[in-house]
Amino acid sequence: MAYNFKLTIEYDGSNYHGWQKQKNDRTIQEEIENAIFKITRNQVVLAGSGRTDAGVHAFNQTAHFFCNTHIEAKNLGRAINSVVPNDIIIKKCVRMDDTFHARYDVKSKVYHYRILNRETPSAICRQYAWFIPKKLHVNAMKAAACHLPGTKDFKAFEATGSPRSSTIRRIINAELSVKDKGYLIFEIKGEGFLKYMVRNIVGTLVGVGAGKITPDDFKNIIASRDRSLAGRTAPACGLFLMHVNY
Amino acid sequence: MAYNFKLTIEYDGSNYHGWQKQKNDRTIQEEIENAIFKITRNQVVLAGSGRTDAGVHAFNQTAHFFCNTHIEAKNLGRAINSVVPNDIIIKKCVRMDDTFHARYDVKSKVYHYRILNRETPSAICRQYAWFIPKKLHVNAMKAAACHLPGTKDFKAFEATGSPRSSTIRRIINAELSVKDKGYLIFEIKGEGFLKYMVRNIVGTLVGVGAGKITPDDFKNIIASRDRSLAGRTAPACGLFLMHVNY
Repeated sequence: MAYNFKLTIEYDGSNYHGWQKQKNDRTIQEEIENAIFKITRNQVVLAGSGRTDAGVHAFNQTAHFFCNTHIEAKNLGRAINSVVPNDIIIKKCVRMDDTFHARYDVKSKVYHYRILNRETPSAICRQYAWFIPKKLHVNAMKAAACHLPGTKDFKAFEATGSPRSSTIRRIINAELSVKDKGYLIFEIKGEGFLKYMVRNIVGTLVGVGAGKITPDDFKNIIASRDRSLAGRTAPACGLFLMHVNY
Repeated sequence: MAYNFKLTIEYDGSNYHGWQKQKNDRTIQEEIENAIFKITRNQVVLAGSGRTDAGVHAFNQTAHFFCNTHIEAKNLGRAINSVVPNDIIIKKCVRMDDTFHARYDVKSKVYHYRILNRETPSAICRQYAWFIPKKLHVNAMKAAACHLPGTKDFKAFEATGSPRSSTIRRIINAELSVKDKGYLIFEIKGEGFLKYMVRNIVGTLVGVGAGKITPDDFKNIIASRDRSLAGRTAPACGLFLMHVNY
């Protein structure tokens, strides 16, 4: 009899081509599926809460899979940890009702994007923040970010060539905060996100911080639904999936 | 004419055999000396504020060297950054009086030691903290740390087989603080440190946190001057040289 297991996963995305299984590249999904196979001889399909792109990190990604095993959930989590590389960690493994689905049941997700805004890059955090040497106007960025919350059409921040039935999403909260040593953290919570949406938002916010566009321009860019008006896609390494809420 | 340059350096020690040049292994000192040679054709000797062991990190290590060049200090720093691997960053390069010496002139140093005390290891910080799954008694550790400040004989925390003329050192401040997500930071500031001293102190403090010895035992271990009574040497990856004060 197959049981439904839910995983909470931390990973350092630096050495992976993202979450989702691919033919020729290492992915998080594949590493974990292979580990589960080694332990249980079940060829499972691990359904994540959503994909993360190559180089993106997660503190609490979630996923579920059905598996025919009598291993207790907690022990199964430990067994997976003993098999996967140490840049992937199963923080939790619990049994769920058969109806639980890691993607369909998502209520909201929280992402952090880390920017290092100082004169010199960091040796230690080089793979965990976007380094921007030019001094950013943080207050302008904060003012721009205020235009994000709400149920809006975010087509301007969607990756080109990725048509969806709807580009309307609800953003619950979006805030920029200043940490010590030159770090800025952009936190965004939403019911759902388009492809590259967070990174395109951050790229555009950095345009505001650099004085290239105003907070009002930022508002107009959202309204335009025109990707070509928004800024560049921020690098993957600064992005962290923090929480998936059900 | 040779000028005296002072460097402030951040490095991720994960892929190095420590600061000090060695015959067969990669070291921070050698990488920077090689970079200076490429840029200026000067075979300099880079004098650090002190060594750091293999795997230990630094946010602000300092060093000086004499170099016959007309390149301005700031530009020299940038040039070095363009040559060294990106796990080493020159944060500052300034010209000093000829009398400045990066080691002899040190007034004090600040180290941080990071412990991750939670059930599962971290994928993202796996090389930047000592993972301890067993719940530690933080208050007992704090109480023990109170016995550190002062001018004392710290022979109990010196690496065996490294005799010095004196094992008396002055610790200015030592404090343990609890951060979020299970991180503990031990900060210690002193005029000087013996070999492995911080890591041996942390190993012993963890013995207190695990309930194996009491804060009073910790005090007695210092007084004993006996290395065999102190705890294990904490792993290098949790240790960060934070500041060198002149």
